[in-house]
Amino acid sequence: MKGSKDHLIEKTFEAFFELEDMREIIRRSLPTGMSAVEEDAFMKSTANLKSVIEALEKGTSEKQANFPQIVDRIGLRYREEGNINIQPIQAAGRLTPEARKALISYGDGYSTCDSCRKPFRLDKISRPPIADFHEELAGFVNMDTARVVPGARRGFQAVTSSLVEKDDPVIVSSLAHYTEFLAVEAAGGKIREIPLDDDNKVDVGSTAEKIEDVIREDGKPPSLMMMDHFDYQYANEHDIKSIAGVAHDYDIPVLYNGAYTVGVMPVDGKKLGADFVVGSGHKSMASPAPSGVLATTDEYADLIFRTTQMKGDVTGRKFGIKEVEMMGCTLMGGTLLAMMASFPHVKKRTQNWDEEVRNSNRFMEEFLKIEGNKVISEYPRRHTLTKVDTTQTFDKVAKEHKRRGFFLSDELSKLGIVGMFPGATRAWKLNTYGLSREKIDYLSDAFKEIAVKYNLNVD
Amino acid sequence: MKGSKDHLIEKTFEAFFELEDMREIIRRSLPTGMSAVEEDAFMKSTANLKSVIEALEKGTSEKQANFPQIVDRIGLRYREEGNINIQPIQAAGRLTPEARKALISYGDGYSTCDSCRKPFRLDKISRPPIADFHEELAGFVNMDTARVVPGARRGFQAVTSSLVEKDDPVIVSSLAHYTEFLAVEAAGGKIREIPLDDDNKVDVGSTAEKIEDVIREDGKPPSLMMMDHFDYQYANEHDIKSIAGVAHDYDIPVLYNGAYTVGVMPVDGKKLGADFVVGSGHKSMASPAPSGVLATTDEYADLIFRTTQMKGDVTGRKFGIKEVEMMGCTLMGGTLLAMMASFPHVKKRTQNWDEEVRNSNRFMEEFLKIEGNKVISEYPRRHTLTKVDTTQTFDKVAKEHKRRGFFLSDELSKLGIVGMFPGATRAWKLNTYGLSREKIDYLSDAFKEIAVKYNLNVD
Repeated sequence: MKGSKDHLIEKTFEAFFELEDMREIIRRSLPTGMSAVEEDAFMKSTANLKSVIEALEKGTSEKQANFPQIVDRIGLRYREEGNINIQPIQAAGRLTPEARKALISYGDGYSTCDSCRKPFRLDKISRPPIADFHEELAGFVNMDTARVVPGARRGFQAVTSSLVEKDDPVIVSSLAHYTEFLAVEAAGGKIREIPLDDDNKVDVGSTAEKIEDVIREDGKPPSLMMMDHFDYQYANEHDIKSIAGVAHDYDIPVLYNGAYTVGVMPVDGKKLGADFVVGSGHKSMASPAPSGVLATTDEYADLIFRTTQMKGDVTGRKFGIKEVEMMGCTLMGGTLLAMMASFPHVKKRTQNWDEEVRNSNRFMEEFLKIEGNKVISEYPRRHTLTKVDTTQTFDKVAKEHKRRGFFLSDELSKLGIVGMFPGATRAWKLNTYGLSREKIDYLSDAFKEIAVKYNLNVD
Repeated sequence: MKGSKDHLIEKTFEAFFELEDMREIIRRSLPTGMSAVEEDAFMKSTANLKSVIEALEKGTSEKQANFPQIVDRIGLRYREEGNINIQPIQAAGRLTPEARKALISYGDGYSTCDSCRKPFRLDKISRPPIADFHEELAGFVNMDTARVVPGARRGFQAVTSSLVEKDDPVIVSSLAHYTEFLAVEAAGGKIREIPLDDDNKVDVGSTAEKIEDVIREDGKPPSLMMMDHFDYQYANEHDIKSIAGVAHDYDIPVLYNGAYTVGVMPVDGKKLGADFVVGSGHKSMASPAPSGVLATTDEYADLIFRTTQMKGDVTGRKFGIKEVEMMGCTLMGGTLLAMMASFPHVKKRTQNWDEEVRNSNRFMEEFLKIEGNKVISEYPRRHTLTKVDTTQTFDKVAKEHKRRGFFLSDELSKLGIVGMFPGATRAWKLNTYGLSREKIDYLSDAFKEIAVKYNLNVD
């Protein structure tokens, strides 16, 4: 490429922003068309845009890139354009071009609601095809009914709020995400963790024992089990199916936390024994935040998605089929439309999960050639999120370096790699999801190059 | 303008979408730059974009506009570009150009979290300036502390979940929004409505009596009052300050529902006697959905924004300052950044509220020149959302028209006016918020023109 990447990024965003200014002129004009003044402004903007495109065509630029601001104090974000982003939780939430187009067109808050008709509920809207999307979502995780929610955590909350009474124990993993803790706490319940085995996996063998202990100690059976298929700490795979099986022996409903699975790998809720499947849109479904999915079976749908029974004592008003735990409608506007726009791609990509895992292991093999590097997560990897240990390598360098632990993120960002926690050189996480083979190899070479630069041994 | 508006809209969105395709090529390329193949694709896209711009410059086009699709089955939304939108709840949520630019740049789910550091909570992030924004939000409604929430309803939920115990009565208006009903129902409380006076306003005089009745009948004092400053039905102004005063005489905390005020008019929470102020981003703050604000006083902040106390029984894990009712972090990504990008404009526009109300009345004066048209809301208007009655005019036409009630929305959309409920010709709502004087006059003329066409009397 003739032009530097920064130059291309600068000009691309300049073009976007010029177009938004043009769009605003269109929005302000009368249906009959633009006034002379508006037309002048529009044509001036069009000319600006044209010169931006010409600068893009010319490609090269001497001067340093000067990225446009969005508004005072809010600069441009171009992390995904300028770098390889290995940030542990961002990788699978990265938007598809389709999602970004949906955000442009449907960004206005109530854009989903233009054709909302009786019975006035988001999941019943047929234009755009929101109702169909809900059906497809349920099928996608092989459950009976699904709703979109503002983040997986709001899915947890809807379930705990429906099932967990005050002081009820709720069984979780010893690697449960903090939002599960909060959902239980909000409902007034108590967290009861299943211990891990020596491989940092939920100890299936002690599940029954734990349930027995809880029944004895808390004086009542757990009203819910929440279990992460892959945990946020190591992204180790946990034997959901067996654990759920034990829970069901005690008639404990099971919530499958698919924040790290739904949207990246095939998930069959019923086969796994889930009564509830929760997924995260911004974590694993290439969707904007906050977004997520809560799916359940016919057995629990009427409870979790119960409609309002409240009646005004003076007016007698009732609000029909609005669902209590959803607070009525959940995800309006571009957030939902972007989720829908990404969905065809998301469905397809779950079929490529094996390739993603191969790339994750392909990177780790090279990363481990730096003598002393360790993988803390289960290895070989079954996921693209991995916790590594560089205490014997980069952390030793950090001790001598004037920038201390920051030297590593410094060196990586010089090579266009971002997303590792700045300053971390002991145990830290990265995620290779969605990276092409070329980027995987570039990433491997980068770490080895830095290792060599600091006289670490590389096989 | 030489070109038809449709042509301009078509080409503008074509340019946006071409740019997203170019952006995707940049995203896929290595930090070192594009491969030859990527460069070819990028240059091809640049050429396409250039020809789109040239079509924009030429302006005119013979052929009918052919709007680009976002993805199969999801068409373009260009309601705001092609029409005057009088939809009752959409007007003040319409995005600013700054918000749209923020969505383009920050659309990826976790874009807010690049610089998230200890203590790892959204409202503490300083780059982008999310922490400052939270301070400004609290000041904006003159309260002590504020949090962003995924919609006003989630603000109601946080308050009821914190204050309302099982079977507690909660006082609301007889025009309370259904999400207040749901928030009370989710917390296990009971709705108790204050009656309206003859002008469809909450009857201040009967507030004390209602509270007394509730205490007698329900056997305990209400644990909360939720009151809409302007209701969703008529957008009548209710005497919040006096009503809150009565509630405080009984030590009942007051939630001020500012879904129709925060972001469009100045709101002074403390002066109004609010213990909680809730606003809606997508309804009144030119922000994407779902978004909103929950603000409170120092007296209640520790309760509503209490941090987690839950502790893992096996691991002893605790999650520090994560707030239970917020479920940790709330609005990530472009939703929050767009809200922040709109905020400077939103702050400014609240100072223009009188002008907005003048425009609302300016339209109504003309609308009422159609003999038989009525305004059901209080008149003269104090808000831009208004309920009107056309039973004696357009509804009579509808009875004779082959399209029945749809004739009116048909006629309006022919004139580039959308957003009235299709088929409604008796009592219906419209909102003039944000319309320029020119659009107000265009709108007035349109209704009178349709009236004349159907032989209704117009003064």
